Amino acid sequence: MRAGIWLIGARGSVATTSVVGALALRAGLTEPVGCVTAHPELNSAALPGFGDLFFGGHDVATGPLVKKAEQLAAAGVLPARLVQALAADLDAVDADLRHAPEGATQDLTAAAIARDLTEFRTRHRLDRVVVVNVASTEAAAPPHPAHAELAALTAALDAPGSVLQPSSLYAYAAFTADCPYVDFTPSTGARLPALAELAAQRGLPYAGHDGKTGETLLKSVLAPMFAMRNLAVRSWSGVNLLGGGDGASLVDPGANAAKSASKQRVLRETLGYAPDGDTRIDYVANIGDFKTAWDLITFEGFLGTGMCLQFTWQGCDSALAAPLVLDLARITLAAQEAGRSGPLEALAYFFKDPMGDVDHALHAQWDALRRYLAGLGEAVAAVDAGPGGAAVDAGPGGGAGAGSGGA
Amino acid sequence: MRAGIWLIGARGSVATTSVVGALALRAGLTEPVGCVTAHPELNSAALPGFGDLFFGGHDVATGPLVKKAEQLAAAGVLPARLVQALAADLDAVDADLRHAPEGATQDLTAAAIARDLTEFRTRHRLDRVVVVNVASTEAAAPPHPAHAELAALTAALDAPGSVLQPSSLYAYAAFTADCPYVDFTPSTGARLPALAELAAQRGLPYAGHDGKTGETLLKSVLAPMFAMRNLAVRSWSGVNLLGGGDGASLVDPGANAAKSASKQRVLRETLGYAPDGDTRIDYVANIGDFKTAWDLITFEGFLGTGMCLQFTWQGCDSALAAPLVLDLARITLAAQEAGRSGPLEALAYFFKDPMGDVDHALHAQWDALRRYLAGLGEAVAAVDAGPGGAAVDAGPGGGAGAGSGGA
Amino acid sequence: MRAGIWLIGARGSVATTSVVGALALRAGLTEPVGCVTAHPELNSAALPGFGDLFFGGHDVATGPLVKKAEQLAAAGVLPARLVQALAADLDAVDADLRHAPEGATQDLTAAAIARDLTEFRTRHRLDRVVVVNVASTEAAAPPHPAHAELAALTAALDAPGSVLQPSSLYAYAAFTADCPYVDFTPSTGARLPALAELAAQRGLPYAGHDGKTGETLLKSVLAPMFAMRNLAVRSWSGVNLLGGGDGASLVDPGANAAKSASKQRVLRETLGYAPDGDTRIDYVANIGDFKTAWDLITFEGFLGTGMCLQFTWQGCDSALAAPLVLDLARITLAAQEAGRSGPLEALAYFFKDPMGDVDHALHAQWDALRRYLAGLGEAVAAVDAGPGGAAVDAGPGGGAGAGSGGA
Amino acid sequence: MRAGIWLIGARGSVATTSVVGALALRAGLTEPVGCVTAHPELNSAALPGFGDLFFGGHDVATGPLVKKAEQLAAAGVLPARLVQALAADLDAVDADLRHAPEGATQDLTAAAIARDLTEFRTRHRLDRVVVVNVASTEAAAPPHPAHAELAALTAALDAPGSVLQPSSLYAYAAFTADCPYVDFTPSTGARLPALAELAAQRGLPYAGHDGKTGETLLKSVLAPMFAMRNLAVRSWSGVNLLGGGDGASLVDPGANAAKSASKQRVLRETLGYAPDGDTRIDYVANIGDFKTAWDLITFEGFLGTGMCLQFTWQGCDSALAAPLVLDLARITLAAQEAGRSGPLEALAYFFKDPMGDVDHALHAQWDALRRYLAGLGEAVAAVDAGPGGAAVDAGPGGGAGAGSGGA
Repeated sequence: MRAGIWLIGARGSVATTSVVGALALRAGLTEPVGCVTAHPELNSAALPGFGDLFFGGHDVATGPLVKKAEQLAAAGVLPARLVQALAADLDAVDADLRHAPEGATQDLTAAAIARDLTEFRTRHRLDRVVVVNVASTEAAAPPHPAHAELAALTAALDAPGSVLQPSSLYAYAAFTADCPYVDFTPSTGARLPALAELAAQRGLPYAGHDGKTGETLLKSVLAPMFAMRNLAVRSWSGVNLLGGGDGASLVDPGANAAKSASKQRVLRETLGYAPDGDTRIDYVANIGDFKTAWDLITFEGFLGTGMCLQFTWQGCDSALAAPLVLDLARITLAAQEAGRSGPLEALAYFFKDPMGDVDHALHAQWDALRRYLAGLGEAVAAVDAGPGGAAVDAGPGGGAGAGSGGA
Repeated sequence: MRAGIWLIGARGSVATTSVVGALALRAGLTEPVGCVTAHPELNSAALPGFGDLFFGGHDVATGPLVKKAEQLAAAGVLPARLVQALAADLDAVDADLRHAPEGATQDLTAAAIARDLTEFRTRHRLDRVVVVNVASTEAAAPPHPAHAELAALTAALDAPGSVLQPSSLYAYAAFTADCPYVDFTPSTGARLPALAELAAQRGLPYAGHDGKTGETLLKSVLAPMFAMRNLAVRSWSGVNLLGGGDGASLVDPGANAAKSASKQRVLRETLGYAPDGDTRIDYVANIGDFKTAWDLITFEGFLGTGMCLQFTWQGCDSALAAPLVLDLARITLAAQEAGRSGPLEALAYFFKDPMGDVDHALHAQWDALRRYLAGLGEAVAAVDAGPGGAAVDAGPGGGAGAGSGGA
Repeated sequence: MRAGIWLIGARGSVATTSVVGALALRAGLTEPVGCVTAHPELNSAALPGFGDLFFGGHDVATGPLVKKAEQLAAAGVLPARLVQALAADLDAVDADLRHAPEGATQDLTAAAIARDLTEFRTRHRLDRVVVVNVASTEAAAPPHPAHAELAALTAALDAPGSVLQPSSLYAYAAFTADCPYVDFTPSTGARLPALAELAAQRGLPYAGHDGKTGETLLKSVLAPMFAMRNLAVRSWSGVNLLGGGDGASLVDPGANAAKSASKQRVLRETLGYAPDGDTRIDYVANIGDFKTAWDLITFEGFLGTGMCLQFTWQGCDSALAAPLVLDLARITLAAQEAGRSGPLEALAYFFKDPMGDVDHALHAQWDALRRYLAGLGEAVAAVDAGPGGAAVDAGPGGGAGAGSGGA
Repeated sequence: MRAGIWLIGARGSVATTSVVGALALRAGLTEPVGCVTAHPELNSAALPGFGDLFFGGHDVATGPLVKKAEQLAAAGVLPARLVQALAADLDAVDADLRHAPEGATQDLTAAAIARDLTEFRTRHRLDRVVVVNVASTEAAAPPHPAHAELAALTAALDAPGSVLQPSSLYAYAAFTADCPYVDFTPSTGARLPALAELAAQRGLPYAGHDGKTGETLLKSVLAPMFAMRNLAVRSWSGVNLLGGGDGASLVDPGANAAKSASKQRVLRETLGYAPDGDTRIDYVANIGDFKTAWDLITFEGFLGTGMCLQFTWQGCDSALAAPLVLDLARITLAAQEAGRSGPLEALAYFFKDPMGDVDHALHAQWDALRRYLAGLGEAVAAVDAGPGGAAVDAGPGGGAGAGSGGA
């Protein structure tokens, strides 16, 4: 499969790290450390190869990708040797990046986005293109009656004014261009009934929300530990200090609230009760890309004895997110090829705020993901085996188109 | 079932906390927080009730149990109100504690131990008695040819000199008295071919080693997290500062080495490679019963980016161990009743250094334990259903003997 | 000297711990650990003895002091044995506690407060009484033109409505009753020109603000360390999790802002620049009286190399504050006896937000305090030596009045 | 002053960072962050300028300095741009590095060392040369009767066999070449009566031991904080994980013991008692140059309430040490010029294990250093003022020689 990945926020840290990483993997300059699809238990023939990925994207920022990569190298996020070795490849990707369109109505903006997607697919003779949102976190979307139904939404978009937040407009445009959509941020994205209706109509899968890269990843193994040991968690307080682009956008109280709410969900649903305490996110410019999270957990053991656990996580968000972006893109493209559509609940493993009523324990999510990938492998094999495969029928949109151009 | 728990090290912190806790549960003065057998997914009718437990034990120390409990209350390990309320019950348990026997030969010592066990069983008309070792950690046992075979062992014990470490001699005596044996410490216990032979002969189950209460518990969820995320752990260093009785015994380098080795096993077997770094245990008298463990984990993500996690665990070892002691005793007694014998690999969930070639990930151990308890429930139901139950046949030794004395 | 300490917030944790501690010292049941006036370099004959202290106070809460002390004992803040041993003494203090007065005008309220102070002094034949504010933190005072001048203030207080925050009204009342005033909180207290005028008129000393017990204490030694090493602090972020009464009052955003501002001053003034980052205070009920503060400091060394320090402070605020309350009361009373008046800048050692343009490095504050106490010793010796002592002349107000009743 | 710095261990991380830093300062490419002699309160005209420093040194390792600098840049210790910009200057320094001599007797080795020093001084027309030991830590020196007296030492060195550890042999050679000596390591260096005799004879100053760069620096401000607050420190445990060259050498138990002992001295002498607990140093290769130290301090406050402080220091040892190496060299050269000789106790500020019976509180050491530098300024001014200056008479050895070649 010739697979396209279209990044919203394509000149940001996560996007740049994803692109540099994929190029480095293609060139054999690095190992897929941190890519969970490279784990022996998850690796599947159904997934497009790391070497078969093409990148494009939108951004409101300008400035060459290689420049951004050099900045990340200076900050210790990327190895300088890779950026030097891949400068020409980065320039080639740059030629596929477009300025984020802005039309007179949101309908016109969506049409321009979809046109960019279609041209990208044609230009590189791609079988499929997945749209991945790695832009800054938005504030929660203000409710609008047109969110409830596709017909109403289509009508409303045609009028002046703003009906959808950018993340949702990109999801809308992606679906109209027969592209699946992944939201790596806590933004609204495809989570509106009208967009679910559109995705169902087109037979397209989508996934989200909010990549699980640090503190919440730890919560997804530590909260089950306390639950399995029948210990009573009394309080769980966390603070995240971060200074990169994502941090700056979180100074906006709306975005911060969206992110914090997403982070506490795992506790309530894993423990069965909400312990005291909050999760805070503070922007500290000088900390840069190496986010530091500190959590204090107080708990009660036998006979009421009070104890505590604290941890400090010092991680580079971009380096943690980028391999998951590649994983998600590969899996979503394979899901589309296998004819799967609708919200991909089996991808809860990747997200702080997953779709559906899912288990938040990391090991349970891992098992679900493993089974899902095994299923995809069988479905894709059935597709390859020719007509009569049920999955082909289930995926009339991009699936059919890709099938015709498939290996 | 009228169930006896015989504690080796019966006047120590863990034993005293276990006894106070069981008495408090019986009196309805506390909740079984920290008891995993109280978790809805694990609770099984096959287990003896918390209110049906009788305690006895050996110790080299003297001094009333209530005094030890008061000391623990002053140190914040036990609530003073419980110790006051249960003073009479503690005195009653005291009447069942015996000074650790010392005979002219190890054979005579073992016979005296077994006699104490039998008398305890008779005195309280108990159906079964399990022996649980919560004494201080021993140095690793020096090898001896008589460890390899029961006949040779029996002969050697009859001669003067020391063939077995105390923990193994207690296991030997327990088996000869038809009692299952649980080792909550890293000591050798029943882990000798000759003792396995004896347990098989008598149809007795046994379990161990080294209760998983703190740092290793965290390793058993964090190491799988790194593995599942395909991150490369470069170093994992830990230091344990503890000041209670267990800490003092670890000043002995042999005991310390035994404990440290037990602690690193989980990493090597979960990650598939041994990261740099060691686990250290330091005795710091003034820290008391609230052990503090600090671990630093350095790891490498995508494109070689270095990151780190550190955690500090401040836990009360006795409060963490005691409910597990009750869990282990209840499960082992039910296993004996269900006719199970040999090493109980399904109890890996409880131990740092479990028996058998088992998964070290906590969630996998949890699943194994859950399945095992469900199986016990069915087996016991079959026993209750009368002759013809398969499990009765499977447990001809201690099971039958104990059954004859049952209610 | 028969010395009275009148506590605002007399039934709170800090006040109760101060009283229990002073009674225990008087009874010889404890050592003055944490009292800096017990340090050999600071101990001065000018200070009233720990055994010569009498306690009274105001509070809006009711309920016996011994009950509050028992609660603190259950929470591990006070030793239960002391509370038991001192129950009768605590009841005696209870008889000197009064409900906080509320008059039709603030002037009437102040008169009632002053009457309580005078009666306390008379009842116990006290030489002097110092008023110490250990009540909950108030929001910052809204500005009022009458704050600028004593005449205007006196007039305004006589009208209905609120001109002064409670802490300032207590300071006003204290001064009219010839009592010095210490503010252990970040509240406004005596920090208004009109109150300074009143203190000067009466020749009374006063001190504040905001007792330095934890995180800021550490800042006062760590910030100088970075400065002395010529290292460039890039960010200093702190979070305080606390659950006692003080924590609950800080849920109020105004009080929280007052406290946080007080906490950052030391950095800016010690380093000469304000590093990135904030100090946050979060109320987490289940954490109780043992406050946990975590700070992350990122700094730059030679050639721009980035490094970091983090610390976690787990301290019991009441246990840290109470001995300082006794220190401050003793010193302020001695200052009054020595005829000192106005803001006591030499007491910066005790405060997060000290009065005057003072050095924030702890060692510099220590030196200033040591010199001040030596000076007091000389002044008091001169007073004892009879007329002609310079300090007497310097303190014509409350000093003289109290002197006449002196031993 | 044209000032030479001769580094023992000249190809190690600390030496390379010192050289790159000094060259960068000379070239105006960096600021003297971390150099305490650049602090406004310490800066003195008596000190040689950063731009007037020349470097040479001995090492047993080979391989170009620029290569080592590139390795340090890859590890994040040095900025790659500086290494590139200074490559030619580094090659020039390389020409002044010599392989560590090895003679048939220690006397012959010392003579070869001294010859290298003299040639370096002559080659660059230097006024003075200071020898600074930044080699790996040695095990403590085995006692030898010839250590007690210079005459005995001279005789013993002439015979085959080893009388002095390398650090002491370098100190001996330095003194015979009229060079002052600074030991930045815990090794024995000049701390032998026979060497003190030699230094006195030649009128040479010397300083040491063990640069205070991380955990001990923190102890030197935190221990005084506890002392000033009259809090009772119950235990102070520390663990240092480090992976650079210094770490590897500490795998040797002798070296480790020397270093650990040096680290605990500050506590005992500052607090007046030795709290429980030890300082450990563990070598963890993958941690590299960024040492991580974790300390747990438990302490007791008012009424016996237990509390704790923990800190984690993640510092780059080379980046912390290098500016202090430059400081020490500049100050020692100025001391020699001012005619000072013997152990420089005023330099305790820089060392974990300072010479003399000195205060360990950092602020007291800072004051002593400030006064010392002010004194040096006056002495050097007197020297410059011509004959009759007392200090000239006090420094007949290297001082006179350097004076004749001075600017």
